[in-house]
Amino acid sequence: MELLKKRILKDGEIITDQILKVDSFLNHQIDPYLIEEISSAFTSRFSDQIFNKILTVESSGIAPAVMTGFKLSIPVVFAKKNKPSTMIENAYTASIHSYTKNSDYEISVSSKFIKKGDRILIIDDFLANGSAARALISIAEQGGAKVGGIGIVIEKGFQNGGKLLREMGYRIESLARIESMSGNKIQFKD
Amino acid sequence: MELLKKRILKDGEIITDQILKVDSFLNHQIDPYLIEEISSAFTSRFSDQIFNKILTVESSGIAPAVMTGFKLSIPVVFAKKNKPSTMIENAYTASIHSYTKNSDYEISVSSKFIKKGDRILIIDDFLANGSAARALISIAEQGGAKVGGIGIVIEKGFQNGGKLLREMGYRIESLARIESMSGNKIQFKD
Repeated sequence: MELLKKRILKDGEIITDQILKVDSFLNHQIDPYLIEEISSAFTSRFSDQIFNKILTVESSGIAPAVMTGFKLSIPVVFAKKNKPSTMIENAYTASIHSYTKNSDYEISVSSKFIKKGDRILIIDDFLANGSAARALISIAEQGGAKVGGIGIVIEKGFQNGGKLLREMGYRIESLARIESMSGNKIQFKD
Repeated sequence: MELLKKRILKDGEIITDQILKVDSFLNHQIDPYLIEEISSAFTSRFSDQIFNKILTVESSGIAPAVMTGFKLSIPVVFAKKNKPSTMIENAYTASIHSYTKNSDYEISVSSKFIKKGDRILIIDDFLANGSAARALISIAEQGGAKVGGIGIVIEKGFQNGGKLLREMGYRIESLARIESMSGNKIQFKD
């Protein structure tokens, strides 16, 4: 997605050769016009698939997920990082390892919102080691749902999450795949 | 907003006479069509105002904020509940008291994203005691911005946040104002 790649080159900040900061348009300040274009790209890339639900994780996945859900006319469920005090019912949980924070945390989804037979599109802002995507897949499968696709805004292609998930048979559509950020320069795959 | 009130009556769950659970359409599972209607209502109610930025707080404020930002063609900034490891620059912070969890937590916004002269629309899913709204106002004002309006999806009119903020001179537009939830029955103000 050219518009996204241009925006990453223009406004992305390389913190280390592993960490890219996109907080001016994606995960702290959000450019709604860009999110709308992102949702169009997801809709187009998965136009051969039928989904009845989108699954994401708070917080940065919510904006692209909701805009895509609006286009596809399907609900969006976001996994919570802290089980809220009002979540009294059963929940599916999975653990995510954050490499940037070097810690594990749990995400959960109320079992009310994942049903056997659901065909789920997972959406997230980043794919790096794949820990968040695998946790969302686990939650979907705990509920008997099938993951029909994974839509990623920015894939760090130099980390192994995408490779592992593709080898497991999941279809991933990444709108910008970064091959390298070394030498303070972003190079895209393609 | 009639569609919203009907949805609250249909799918909202009264947990106690103080706590309403709307996780099937607003803050865990999200109905994107409803969010789009919510954003239309905010746009219409604030049509006499000019804003250049929307400020909300993760996570449940993000969906209505981004959809409204798209309609108004302005960026959205969401305050973070945990200062991320990549937020190395200065940040404006404020404290929120959660009555449901009976604890305080801090929210922060990078000072890059609030500018002197900004005219801000605050959007959030709930207004109860007003602690989150006051924290967002504080962050906006720390950055020299002016809060031109506060758009709330559901106001618990039986708690005093809305009253206090209106007395302070802030314009609040609540799409559903609940007067009472006692006796396991939701009554709206109007």
